[in-house]
Amino acid sequence: MNETSAGSRKPFRRLLLTGASGNLGRQLRDALAAWADIVRVSDIAPMSAAAAHEEASVVDLADREAVMHMVEGVDAIVHLGGISIDAPFDDLIEANIRGTYNLYEAARKHGVKRVVFASSNHAIGFHPVTEVLDADAPQRPDSLYGVTKCFGESLSRYYFDRFGIETVCLRIGSSFEEPKNPRMLVTYLSYRDFIELVRCSLFTNRVGHAVVYGASDNPIKWWDNTKANFLGFRPRDSSTQFSDRFPVTSPTAEYDDPAQRFQGGMFVLGEPMERSA
Amino acid sequence: MNETSAGSRKPFRRLLLTGASGNLGRQLRDALAAWADIVRVSDIAPMSAAAAHEEASVVDLADREAVMHMVEGVDAIVHLGGISIDAPFDDLIEANIRGTYNLYEAARKHGVKRVVFASSNHAIGFHPVTEVLDADAPQRPDSLYGVTKCFGESLSRYYFDRFGIETVCLRIGSSFEEPKNPRMLVTYLSYRDFIELVRCSLFTNRVGHAVVYGASDNPIKWWDNTKANFLGFRPRDSSTQFSDRFPVTSPTAEYDDPAQRFQGGMFVLGEPMERSA
Amino acid sequence: MNETSAGSRKPFRRLLLTGASGNLGRQLRDALAAWADIVRVSDIAPMSAAAAHEEASVVDLADREAVMHMVEGVDAIVHLGGISIDAPFDDLIEANIRGTYNLYEAARKHGVKRVVFASSNHAIGFHPVTEVLDADAPQRPDSLYGVTKCFGESLSRYYFDRFGIETVCLRIGSSFEEPKNPRMLVTYLSYRDFIELVRCSLFTNRVGHAVVYGASDNPIKWWDNTKANFLGFRPRDSSTQFSDRFPVTSPTAEYDDPAQRFQGGMFVLGEPMERSA
Amino acid sequence: MNETSAGSRKPFRRLLLTGASGNLGRQLRDALAAWADIVRVSDIAPMSAAAAHEEASVVDLADREAVMHMVEGVDAIVHLGGISIDAPFDDLIEANIRGTYNLYEAARKHGVKRVVFASSNHAIGFHPVTEVLDADAPQRPDSLYGVTKCFGESLSRYYFDRFGIETVCLRIGSSFEEPKNPRMLVTYLSYRDFIELVRCSLFTNRVGHAVVYGASDNPIKWWDNTKANFLGFRPRDSSTQFSDRFPVTSPTAEYDDPAQRFQGGMFVLGEPMERSA
Amino acid sequence: MNETSAGSRKPFRRLLLTGASGNLGRQLRDALAAWADIVRVSDIAPMSAAAAHEEASVVDLADREAVMHMVEGVDAIVHLGGISIDAPFDDLIEANIRGTYNLYEAARKHGVKRVVFASSNHAIGFHPVTEVLDADAPQRPDSLYGVTKCFGESLSRYYFDRFGIETVCLRIGSSFEEPKNPRMLVTYLSYRDFIELVRCSLFTNRVGHAVVYGASDNPIKWWDNTKANFLGFRPRDSSTQFSDRFPVTSPTAEYDDPAQRFQGGMFVLGEPMERSA
Amino acid sequence: MNETSAGSRKPFRRLLLTGASGNLGRQLRDALAAWADIVRVSDIAPMSAAAAHEEASVVDLADREAVMHMVEGVDAIVHLGGISIDAPFDDLIEANIRGTYNLYEAARKHGVKRVVFASSNHAIGFHPVTEVLDADAPQRPDSLYGVTKCFGESLSRYYFDRFGIETVCLRIGSSFEEPKNPRMLVTYLSYRDFIELVRCSLFTNRVGHAVVYGASDNPIKWWDNTKANFLGFRPRDSSTQFSDRFPVTSPTAEYDDPAQRFQGGMFVLGEPMERSA
Repeated sequence: MNETSAGSRKPFRRLLLTGASGNLGRQLRDALAAWADIVRVSDIAPMSAAAAHEEASVVDLADREAVMHMVEGVDAIVHLGGISIDAPFDDLIEANIRGTYNLYEAARKHGVKRVVFASSNHAIGFHPVTEVLDADAPQRPDSLYGVTKCFGESLSRYYFDRFGIETVCLRIGSSFEEPKNPRMLVTYLSYRDFIELVRCSLFTNRVGHAVVYGASDNPIKWWDNTKANFLGFRPRDSSTQFSDRFPVTSPTAEYDDPAQRFQGGMFVLGEPMERSA
Repeated sequence: MNETSAGSRKPFRRLLLTGASGNLGRQLRDALAAWADIVRVSDIAPMSAAAAHEEASVVDLADREAVMHMVEGVDAIVHLGGISIDAPFDDLIEANIRGTYNLYEAARKHGVKRVVFASSNHAIGFHPVTEVLDADAPQRPDSLYGVTKCFGESLSRYYFDRFGIETVCLRIGSSFEEPKNPRMLVTYLSYRDFIELVRCSLFTNRVGHAVVYGASDNPIKWWDNTKANFLGFRPRDSSTQFSDRFPVTSPTAEYDDPAQRFQGGMFVLGEPMERSA
Repeated sequence: MNETSAGSRKPFRRLLLTGASGNLGRQLRDALAAWADIVRVSDIAPMSAAAAHEEASVVDLADREAVMHMVEGVDAIVHLGGISIDAPFDDLIEANIRGTYNLYEAARKHGVKRVVFASSNHAIGFHPVTEVLDADAPQRPDSLYGVTKCFGESLSRYYFDRFGIETVCLRIGSSFEEPKNPRMLVTYLSYRDFIELVRCSLFTNRVGHAVVYGASDNPIKWWDNTKANFLGFRPRDSSTQFSDRFPVTSPTAEYDDPAQRFQGGMFVLGEPMERSA
Repeated sequence: MNETSAGSRKPFRRLLLTGASGNLGRQLRDALAAWADIVRVSDIAPMSAAAAHEEASVVDLADREAVMHMVEGVDAIVHLGGISIDAPFDDLIEANIRGTYNLYEAARKHGVKRVVFASSNHAIGFHPVTEVLDADAPQRPDSLYGVTKCFGESLSRYYFDRFGIETVCLRIGSSFEEPKNPRMLVTYLSYRDFIELVRCSLFTNRVGHAVVYGASDNPIKWWDNTKANFLGFRPRDSSTQFSDRFPVTSPTAEYDDPAQRFQGGMFVLGEPMERSA
Repeated sequence: MNETSAGSRKPFRRLLLTGASGNLGRQLRDALAAWADIVRVSDIAPMSAAAAHEEASVVDLADREAVMHMVEGVDAIVHLGGISIDAPFDDLIEANIRGTYNLYEAARKHGVKRVVFASSNHAIGFHPVTEVLDADAPQRPDSLYGVTKCFGESLSRYYFDRFGIETVCLRIGSSFEEPKNPRMLVTYLSYRDFIELVRCSLFTNRVGHAVVYGASDNPIKWWDNTKANFLGFRPRDSSTQFSDRFPVTSPTAEYDDPAQRFQGGMFVLGEPMERSA
Repeated sequence: MNETSAGSRKPFRRLLLTGASGNLGRQLRDALAAWADIVRVSDIAPMSAAAAHEEASVVDLADREAVMHMVEGVDAIVHLGGISIDAPFDDLIEANIRGTYNLYEAARKHGVKRVVFASSNHAIGFHPVTEVLDADAPQRPDSLYGVTKCFGESLSRYYFDRFGIETVCLRIGSSFEEPKNPRMLVTYLSYRDFIELVRCSLFTNRVGHAVVYGASDNPIKWWDNTKANFLGFRPRDSSTQFSDRFPVTSPTAEYDDPAQRFQGGMFVLGEPMERSA
């Protein structure tokens, strides 16, 4: 991507990043600096010190007024905030359902027209590992967490059809420094590819309401991004370099293990949790 | 359907009907008497007096313990409860999101294996009126209410994939005594056909996680139930008899009116509401 | 359809019928009287005497100015005009290509928003008789005549996408008093059903750019109108009553005859014609 | 269907019926008399006495020469012969694999151009009962018997593509006097509808290589014949009249019984059999 | 591609190139020299001097006799001729409708069996930029020019089905020295890739009636050529090298601009033109 | 693939290779040594001397007991055995029908859960060369040999649905040292890519019942393996290096030759053979 002329202005005046203290949020902070004059970083948890170009704010997404304030004056939003693991449903309601609603309402009221929404492969985790999915595959959440990601996809669809707010739903695989288990050889999304995926989602001229899978160019593919080719996302990394870490075994072990049969892996074995007292 | 022999036992021992005080709930109470020895009727609002075969309970679906108690001992559930119009999102969360979750959790804990869930055409109301949808059409909610119906469909899908609880999602059109406006000539579902649809959904041997549209055999059809033919639902009524009530007009009026262009009708014009103080 | 109250106004103020002297045009003239205060009837050939509610005009569709004048002041158009058999291409260009263009340009300039366009089964006649087509089947013209009908479908699509002029493309089978050969037992469209198809196409609230096949409820069906169910067209007649007219024969005769293999029948055997001097 | 003029000739000169002693073969013998001057009836088992218009022959389909002789001089074949229940594979090879091959080779050598082949719903019996299949549904045989029916469909496809011999594959449900169990309320094909299905398959002008499901107009439908509408088959009977015979029960019984989950019913529980000594 | 043995003969004896004076025609002239002993180059406009292996002819495509003469003796045709921008419809009729008809009639009469036809992305330009199209995407012309390209695709389909003349329809993006605006970063087809696309279209053993999109391997892709993979076309260039030329901007600018929303770009804003006097 | 630690154990304890003396069987023997402690190699024909890690057995696949013995104690099977060219049907029955049945019955009885089955492109050879097929393309066998490969695909589907035995059906193109004719430039599968394809089929964690095409990364592609991407197969070779061997010719030669029109090439011209005495 070329630099804009004469140093002064970057493509965006102000971007908002939610979930900025999380694993992926931390990866993005540097990248966003190149794309916007000001980056507003937000989380419910404390963050590392804000850089000169950053505005930091600690916000509970379930707090409507705080969210409204957080969104004011931004051009676009990268929404990584909320709970990103399975959790008691009461908690998921606050962070992922009420929180996402608050975010979109704030976007609507403040005229924000583009959201990059961190959905998850767990929105489709109950598809078997022998199926290759594209953007039109039906949702098959593998957990209550996954159900709340489906909710986010539905809600953002509504805000697009009704109010014209564009969203790219990133069905992120496993974005870590490196794969932690054999399943992640399939679902691995390198940090570099993750950042590129966000870049494409922010800068593509029109995205409508799009669904795109977030995985690097790994040998085994469960997901086919052909229908999202208009975003121009091309992963450059691959899990191949990590394949030595996991011993190759006969596939006949644990034949009936559901965690081996479904794309969601261990998530499909979870059960709704009680909120601890 | 034939009567079971010797008067004594009906197919179900105990059925639960939520939303029993609502428009459709009232229609079903008589029908359910023929299908179950005991009908547990529930609503947040007061109900008309319980019949001899009925157990009445006033329950707020957002109250987890009350819902757990309500579901105990039932064989199957017809879930019409919750809010069935657009409403402030905080209210929708309690009734339609937390409430539906409470219901499925109770079903899981009490071993209930079949739910008939009143979804709505507003889960797909942002499809244009020039498209004919089948069960695989993507969700296009036309309102926050519609978004919560999408949530119910996602949640029940999860409870089927994970716990084997079967659900038929009824995307009900407009079920009233008779059509109230020209749009309802398309979406009309007679009470008799509604009851038949519930009957098919309860008695079909296996339903998995099914989506079926609820409309009578009206001349204009936006929905195609071919993929749900395994339910055996065949509407016997039609809106034709009511067509005289609405003057035939040139279609060129109000050409750009979104309420004319989308299946959801007036719903597509709504906006998120604030909860009144 | 109900009569409008108190006799005075009909749904349309003025309808235009082109091709009014042709076989199908003559069938429609009476019907249109019930739908519009004034019916403008047009043809390149002389017509029978105009009724009190009719305005007659003899117009060559290739004459831009005459067409512009013909369209002025009408609410909607039923366009049956042009050449409806195979013919020298130079003739087809004038009547079906330049003529249809002139019609749509006139509609655009005069603000007409609805056209019912007589396309033809010959736009898809090179599909084999062992395939059942729906509205999304690719065009397979069986003749130069069929190619010009494909042109009309493309052109009207453009006028819809660009200018919002709605068109229903009627892929008419064989609309005659009765079937004239065995193929017409499949393609037969009774006059009564033809009129009903035009009625649905004119009065449905929104049609966008629609394709619908015009056949009665004949035993053998090559065409499936499910995707056009939003028009509410239900044929009431059938070719069954005429089946006795054609001897039942073994199908093994004339095994390689292309006219037996393709839906277009004898049309697939035609060749481009020279215009006679 | 009309009678041919002047009494003398019927549409076919000579039809061959294999499996003439079986349940369905016996139903067809009378019907065929109306369609052909001569009906050659064949079976491996003894038959009831041949009528004046019949030629009877006892033939083992695995006997190539006998089959070659049996096919000589016929215009078309209704092939019901072979084994129609699960059986030891060695037996299935002879009757259904070698036998069907012998039949098609004889058809090829004698120039027969049309075969009506009794396939079976057991060619697709491992599809779940919650799916509605059309002619393009992938084969899912539920038994070795079903596998041999898939073979017959593949073989006949080859003979069509290579030699132009047309076949209609009838995926017959349960064709008996009346349904014998609840599953047959779905799969029931009345004898009258069966005969009509054969009639359509024999007389339709061109059939190519077609797949059609054989079921009456029963309330619950697992199969959708839209793609075979070019055959003109419309069932006139329904299992509704028999529904009283089977008590309506709650669907929650035997929840994990595979025979309830798959279209093939009890067949899916079978295992390969040894041939008894 | 290998040279044919013994120097003398090239794969084609004589190829015809129409539109040889245009932008793309000029690119092809050199390439064609390698593929045919004689290259007949034709245009309505004057051409640069013919090379030794070339036969030059100035022909108006609307002139039937001249076209008939032009096609005589050629083995295959690369048809780039006609009008390649929006223009008054009367002009488009002559060049693109009558002209293409003349060309195919001449091909039929002279036994030419292969045409490479320059269609255009404007045949599908009214699809939104958030959709990825393949060869079966329905036509959505964005201009009268695009409508005439749809006509060429229909006409060539007819000549294939009826007369066996094979055509590859090239839906060319933007083939220039380099992209001239941001949209062309998506639609760019380098000259080298264009030539390769024509080569594949000419030399592939059988092409039937094919549709292929003409774009280089650009980062953003609106078109998916999977269904045309039998042509063996693999672009080697990419617009990436030119991306620095256009400043990266926030996508929120000009949110409602149709030229940004549809693949056809500025074409979707055009209106039918009058022919100047 | 990484080596397993400390030399001792390989992923599989014992693999079975049938058809070990054939062209492809010989290629695999070395590769299998790296994947299993013991490789049982089998063929009806004599084999080259067994290596230290190999167990050799000469087995006629039609001999049930011998096959039962052959399969005992193996973890997985690579089934290349049987007849791999067209042959008299009686021979094909023994080797490819009875033989494959014997193999799967033995697998079932001995608890083998994974088979890699050498199907063939001749199972789909009657598709035209202008179509790109994916794993769901309907079978179109081009020969009796192809019909028996369809049988193997059906049979293995049954053993998966009924008994959970997983199979990868390899629809192998032309796997030789190098392409022998122009068609093989499309269907070429290098030995290295063939071995990689078997490796992916053996080691992928779950494969269900999969269909994958076996071709290298050749310029022209008739087959699209997207739906089998979960296997992780990526060819590394290409026929490009061999393209010089075949002169480039005009495609207009032999226009009506079926061997040029269908993917099966010369196979589509074959006829059922008699078994020589």
